Parts: sequence; structure tokens; C-alpha cells
Amino acid sequence: MKASELAARLGGTLEGDDVELFACGGLEEARKGDLSFCKDVKHVKLVQSTQASAVLLPPDWTDGAPCAIIRVADPNHACMAAAELFAPPVPVRAPGVHPTAIVDPSVKLGADVHVGAYTIIEKNSVIGDGAVIEAQVFIGENCVVGARTHVYPQVTLREGTKVGADCIFHCGVRLGGDGYGFNNGRREDGSVYIEKIPQLGIVEIGDGVEIGSNTTIDRARIGRTYIGPMTKIDNLVQIGHNVKVKGYSGLIAQSGVAGSTEIGYGCLIWAQAGISGHIKIADGVQVGPQAGVPQSLDGSLKYVIGAPAMSMKDLAAITLAPKMIAKLKAEVKELKARLAATPMA
Amino acid sequence: MKASELAARLGGTLEGDDVELFACGGLEEARKGDLSFCKDVKHVKLVQSTQASAVLLPPDWTDGAPCAIIRVADPNHACMAAAELFAPPVPVRAPGVHPTAIVDPSVKLGADVHVGAYTIIEKNSVIGDGAVIEAQVFIGENCVVGARTHVYPQVTLREGTKVGADCIFHCGVRLGGDGYGFNNGRREDGSVYIEKIPQLGIVEIGDGVEIGSNTTIDRARIGRTYIGPMTKIDNLVQIGHNVKVKGYSGLIAQSGVAGSTEIGYGCLIWAQAGISGHIKIADGVQVGPQAGVPQSLDGSLKYVIGAPAMSMKDLAAITLAPKMIAKLKAEVKELKARLAATPMA
Amino acid sequence: MKASELAARLGGTLEGDDVELFACGGLEEARKGDLSFCKDVKHVKLVQSTQASAVLLPPDWTDGAPCAIIRVADPNHACMAAAELFAPPVPVRAPGVHPTAIVDPSVKLGADVHVGAYTIIEKNSVIGDGAVIEAQVFIGENCVVGARTHVYPQVTLREGTKVGADCIFHCGVRLGGDGYGFNNGRREDGSVYIEKIPQLGIVEIGDGVEIGSNTTIDRARIGRTYIGPMTKIDNLVQIGHNVKVKGYSGLIAQSGVAGSTEIGYGCLIWAQAGISGHIKIADGVQVGPQAGVPQSLDGSLKYVIGAPAMSMKDLAAITLAPKMIAKLKAEVKELKARLAATPMA
Repeated sequence: MKASELAARLGGTLEGDDVELFACGGLEEARKGDLSFCKDVKHVKLVQSTQASAVLLPPDWTDGAPCAIIRVADPNHACMAAAELFAPPVPVRAPGVHPTAIVDPSVKLGADVHVGAYTIIEKNSVIGDGAVIEAQVFIGENCVVGARTHVYPQVTLREGTKVGADCIFHCGVRLGGDGYGFNNGRREDGSVYIEKIPQLGIVEIGDGVEIGSNTTIDRARIGRTYIGPMTKIDNLVQIGHNVKVKGYSGLIAQSGVAGSTEIGYGCLIWAQAGISGHIKIADGVQVGPQAGVPQSLDGSLKYVIGAPAMSMKDLAAITLAPKMIAKLKAEVKELKARLAATPMA
Repeated sequence: MKASELAARLGGTLEGDDVELFACGGLEEARKGDLSFCKDVKHVKLVQSTQASAVLLPPDWTDGAPCAIIRVADPNHACMAAAELFAPPVPVRAPGVHPTAIVDPSVKLGADVHVGAYTIIEKNSVIGDGAVIEAQVFIGENCVVGARTHVYPQVTLREGTKVGADCIFHCGVRLGGDGYGFNNGRREDGSVYIEKIPQLGIVEIGDGVEIGSNTTIDRARIGRTYIGPMTKIDNLVQIGHNVKVKGYSGLIAQSGVAGSTEIGYGCLIWAQAGISGHIKIADGVQVGPQAGVPQSLDGSLKYVIGAPAMSMKDLAAITLAPKMIAKLKAEVKELKARLAATPMA
Repeated sequence: MKASELAARLGGTLEGDDVELFACGGLEEARKGDLSFCKDVKHVKLVQSTQASAVLLPPDWTDGAPCAIIRVADPNHACMAAAELFAPPVPVRAPGVHPTAIVDPSVKLGADVHVGAYTIIEKNSVIGDGAVIEAQVFIGENCVVGARTHVYPQVTLREGTKVGADCIFHCGVRLGGDGYGFNNGRREDGSVYIEKIPQLGIVEIGDGVEIGSNTTIDRARIGRTYIGPMTKIDNLVQIGHNVKVKGYSGLIAQSGVAGSTEIGYGCLIWAQAGISGHIKIADGVQVGPQAGVPQSLDGSLKYVIGAPAMSMKDLAAITLAPKMIAKLKAEVKELKARLAATPMA
């Protein structure tokens, strides 16, 4: 977009060349083709050294800039507005089924559903009004997808998966894979056996759930693996079979929850944290990044960190142990010296 | 399924409304449409407060229930039987090649093979009798897939991958990607170079191996990355190039094994554990959740935990260090006081 | 390949049976059908017990072998040459668009581009000369893919993604998914709200970047998530929104970088490490396996490890704390005994 057009749209005035602009960026990160912004004269040096092609500045800025200037009342606000103008246009996913999509005749499609190219929807599945099922998706038999749910390309829903309304599933999400369940041991003759335990349940997802790219959620052993409403799950997260996330919780990237564990309402599980199976995390508890939780958390600690998970204070004490030991060592040495100087009985 | 039909199938008798039932669930988790179960009168309060629509109870239960009752001899056993009845029907993958599948004429398909829609099998690959290759799968050139192996949608096998019989690969499994291998350093002129090392080997998978959703196994630098028979791998696991897993081992979700490492027979690598490259884990060793193993484990420890990996006892000692330090501190303080009260020479 | 043919190609001479050979392997790992190698008589026992079908040995080897021998001047070098002969042939991806590919008429394809079966390229995207877009790939609207970039099957590029030249994206890579961004809190009536923050930016990838299987890189909140030139990313890595990797860095498997963090030039982030959001890692810093970095690293430490990340020395001190405590305890005990034996005032 031309700087002059952008200035007009933002209600500002252009000073300098009518450069072509493509994106927003901070003063330090910006480069040729970028628009940056500054509202405070204390950052004048960053303005002077920016690589941006244009910069949003307030009316009273008198220090100039090494590039085009777009003068606006509120540079921060104008930058956000510009970001929306620069954003790649959101692809239109109009209602209709692409001719290459393979939708079983028994499938019930709601009103205004979009089904993309090379997508497969197997028998007896039901897709709600206004749902968008993008290209190259696989939806197995007897699935339900709620109204307005948006499924990005290359997601797979195994048979029987139930999904609520207004969900968003990013590329590569895997719902309903078999849980990890095996019986193993030794036979009387000493040989080892490993037998697969049938995974007979389903995955059920509540309304308003967002799931990040390449995240995996296993079907239940029996019954359901349940992700409650408004839960927000990031990329590459693993949810084991029969896990229950009550709702309104967040699970950040690369975290994992082992089988049959229950996560309360309003919890936040930070990146790379791991939660053992068959335990309960109380409502509102936060599990810090990389924490390992071996036992139930009853909410008496609102935030845990470390492995095994503990309070911030307890983790700090472990980290400080070498300093404390060095101090004690010096004291003991001094005591020894004083004792050596003391006449014995 | 109607409660009456279920009661008949389970050999029980229905008392109360002939409700519609969809799934099994524990007394606390169950909700409308669920069947729950209880065999012991000590859980009478859980029965009284359950949200289930029906509950399996033993013949001698006299405390009633707030929902329909199906009386059976063994409620636990009946619940498992009911779970099988509630399970979504397993999709039939009948022998035959879907007309949209692109199978190179040189491919050898065994008897009764299923190939799903939009699946691609490239030249010279061989698919064994009774194998199921579901929809949207990619099998590159010169691959071998053994008899009865089941490949779920959206799996990719790069060229040359060899797979045994009776394996199960869940959605999004990636076999045969290039391993992470680069030569780098500085040239005489000071400039940095990073050169890709050709990854010339393959991935070879033994019989009876199950691999979870979105797990990745890299092809060897030369020779093979090998996953031995009956190994069970969970979701989102990473196996580096030239790793050798001898067999009958388990690798739980989000664990990772770096290049050229050997995992013995009957090992169990717990979730999120990491194992360094070029080391050996002895037969039967368990690596605990989130453990980090920098060196070979010879089996003298049967279970390791922590990072660097150590015995449970050693990890406990580190965790307890602050307590021990506090105790010592008190003792030193007392010694000081006593010494101060002692007449000096 | 017959041993006789291999011997001829390697300029060696065959002694013994003209066995069929399929792969290279170390003396201990090799099995039937494998070629192994040994150049030093000190490994004679490994040669004697190898399961290989043939072994490369030097001219002066007089100890024989339990299998066919191919005598060559330099067994190590010959083994590398043999590995290239055994390698599965690299599939030819000839220029041309597969008839099942769906390429929007507005897409600009460079010269000699390959587009595989069932691949989708949406409107206004641009593919550079000699690029290889394999089968079942999804490239959204307004994407740019540079010359000679190789995209393996089942990769997804969301709208607006920009990719440089000479990149390699392995199967299941996800570029441009929405970043994890939500506003949440409580309304005046006490109810909880969680609102999605629009993710308006893009992903931009420099030249020569390689990205491993199932790795995910999120689009920016505004502006761009940027992966600089020659960065090498392994499998199952997570890169959050607005992260900037300056270039010439490595990120090993299952590591993660949270939003808005900057990784300098020439950094190496080891496997399963996690880096917090909104921080900076200085040029050349290495973050050890499983390390957790909560704060910026200014380069005063060249290598960090542990969580929170620290020097190797500091981590060793924590690990050694129990030993130090035991020593101090013994000393305090001895002091107590001596003090008890000392006459009090």
C-alpha cells in the first residue's frame, strides 16, 4: 500500500516520499517496506536509526526521521489500524461443497457449510450450520461438528468424535487416536507379551474450544476424553485418554496431560509442563513451564513449578542450596578453628 | 440404545424409565444419557448424587437410585460389556482400492488390501496381504508395508521405508524424514558455513509396532533407524537418525531419543523424557517422566529420574537439601552459642 | 546388489560367496544382508562375531572373517561409498503440475516447478523457479515460495506465508497457524470471558532454512514471525508468534520458543529446551537440552543448562548439594562431640 493511501486511511498526513509499505514493525526490527511508530520523544535515537520506510509520529514531533513520516494524533493506535490494513486478506470460505470433496450421502450438512477440496466426510456424520471444513480434512464415521466450527486443512477426526459449536482446529490436529494402553507381562513359559487394550470411547469437545497445530487428543478407553467449553489449547500438546478438562482453561505449547487426569476450571498449564495420569488439578491452579506434576493439586498452591512440582519458594531454596552450603561450610570451618584454640578437658 | 434393550443384552432387569443411553461414565463424571455402575453399598452417596440416566446395580442393592436401575449380577463386568456396545462401530475397510487413490502400476499389492481415497503409493512399493492403508496417506517409492499393518489417514512414509507386519500407525505419523545433520564451521575468510549432510539411510520398523499420532522417526544417516518388534510408541515422540530400539519397549508421549542411541529390550521411556545421542540404555531400564539422560545406563539402576538422570533416592536428596540445610544451620548456630559460652585459652 | 558388483564398483576384490547385500551397518549391529567394515586388527573379535553377510577389510588383514570379504584399500571410505550405492534412489520430481493438483489460475508458477498430486495452491500465490511442491500439500492465498525450495508431502502454509529460496520443509510442517493469544478476565457480573486476539501478521522464512517434520511456526500477532537465513530446525519444534530468529541458528527436536522472543545469530537450542516469551538470546549462545530460560541471556554465559537456566558449574553444585550436606553433617557431629568433651565455664 502506498504511504499516501495509508495516511489517508489513518486520517494522517504524509511528509516525504510516497513509499510502498507492506507491514508493521517495531523501530528496531523494522526494515525496508515497513511502517514503524513512535509517540514519545525519549525514543528519538531509535527513530533516527530505524530501517523502516515510514514512521508514524505525533503532531508535535520536531526531531524528524530518516524516512517518510505519517503524522497522526495517536501513533500506537494508528499502527494497530495499519496492521489490520496490512494483514493478508482472510480467505473467503463460501458455503458449498467442493466437487472433489467426498461426502458420504448419509452425512447431514447444515445450512451454509463449506467443505474444501479433497476433504473426506464419512458416513452418518453431522456438520452444523455455518461450519467451515477446509481442504484435505478427514472426518470419520459418526462424528458431530457443531455450528460455525472452523476446521483448517489436514485435520483428522477419527470415528465418533463429537465437537461443539464455535471451535477452531488448526492444521494437523489429531482427535480420537487410540490411547496408549497395553497389558503386558510374562507368560508361564517366561516369554513376554504385550497386548493392545481396545480403546472403545470417544473424544468430546465443548463449545468455543481452540486447538493449535499438530496437537493430539486420544479417544477414551471407555466413555469419553472431554475438553470442556472455552478451553484454549496451543500447538503440539498431548492429551491422553479419558482426560477431563472441565473448561475455561489454557494449555500452552508442548504441554502434556496423561490418561484419566482431571483439569479444573480456569487452570493454566504452561509450556512443556507434564501432568501425570489419574490425578486432579483443582480449579484455577497454574502449572508453570516445564513443571512436572506427579500428584493431585488441591489448590492450596495457586502456582507450582519444578519437577516434582512445588512452590516458587521451595524451588528457589533448592537453587540457592549451594550458596547456603558454602556459607555453612565457612561457619563450620571457623567453629573448628575456634574449638582447636580451646583447651580440652 | 434404549435401557430396556441394554438390560436385555446384559442379562439384567430394568427398573424405572426406559431412557436412551449413549455412553458409560463413573458415578461422579456421568451426566444425562450416561450409564454408570456401582457394586458396593459404601458408595451409596455417589449413587444418590449421580447425574447418570441409569445405573448398573447388584441384585441385593436396597438403597434405590435417582435414575433408572439395571440390576445385574456383576455391575463392573456389565459396565465393560456395555462400553463395547456403546463404542462407535469400527469402520469397515473392505479390500479394494478407492478410485481416487493413485497407486503406481509397479506397486505390488497383496491380497485383500484396502487403499483409501486420495492416498498415493509411489513406484516399486510393496503392500502386504490384508494391509489397510486409509485415506490421504502418502507412501513414497520403494517402501515395504507388511501384512495386516493398519495405516490411519494422513500418515507419510518417505522413500525406502520398511515396515513389518501387524503394525498400527496413527494419523500424522512421519517416517523417514531427513535426520538433523549438518557440518558447520568457519571458512578461512571468517564466514560461517552450514552444509547439509546427506541422509542416505532408511527407517525400518519390526512386526507389531504401534506408533501414535504425529510421532516422527528420522531416516538413518547411513544404514537404518530401527524400531524393533512389539515396540509401542505414543504420540508426538521424536526418534532421531540411526537410533536402534531393540524391541518390546515403550516410549510414552513427547519423549525423544537423539541420534545413534540404542534402547534395549523391554525398556520404558516415560513421557517427555529425553535421551542423548550415541549412548546405550540397557535392557529393562525405565527412564522416568521428564528425565534427561546424558550418558549410557548399564542397568545397575532399573529406574532413573531427574536431569541429569539419577536414582529416585538421589533426586529426593536434592529436593530435601533445603530442609537438611535448615537443620544444619540450627545446629551450627547452637554450637556457636555453646562455644561462645566456653572459656577460651 | 551382488557382492561381486559392489566389489567392482568399490575397486575391491571379493573373497567368498557372491551374497546379496542391501545395507551398511556397524560390526555389532549388522545382520544378514548387511555389509560391514573394519580397518584395524584390534577389532578382530567384532569381525569374528559379526552377523554381516560381507565385510570390507584392508589388504593386509590376515585374520579372515565368518562371511564374504571385500578387500579394499580404505574400508571406512569404501563403506561410505557403498552407503551411497545402497541408498534408496532419490525420487525424481520432474517439472510439471500433476493433473489432480488444484492450482488457482492466478498463481504464478516459475520455470520448472513440480507440483504433486492432490496439492492445493490458492489464489495469488507465487512459486519460484525450480521449486518442488510435493503431493498433498496445502499452500493458502498470497503465499510466496522461493526458488528451489523443496516442500515434502502434507505440509501446510496458511495465507500470506513468505518463504525464501533453497528451503526444505519436511512432512507435516505447519506454517502460519494462529498464535496463542487471548484476552481474558472477569466481567462486572463475575462471569469469565476469554476473547481471541486476532492474529493479523504472517510467517516469513529466509533463504536456506530447513524445517523438520511436524514442526509448527505461528503467524505474528501483527507484523511477522521471522526465521532468518540458514536456520536449521528439527522435528516437533514450536515457534510462537512474533518470534525472531536472526539466522544461522539451530533448534533441535521438541524445543520451543515462546512469543516475541529474539534468538541471535549462530545460537544452538538443544532438544526439549524451552525459552520464555519477550526475551533475547544473544548471538552464539547455546541453550542445553531440557533447559528452561526465563530471562534474556546476554552472552556472558556461552552455554546454559537446567531450569531456570544456569551455568554447568552452578547446576553441578546443586546436584552435589546432598554430598556436601552429608560432609558438613559429619563435621558438625564431630564438632558437637568435641564440644561436649570440652569443660564448660
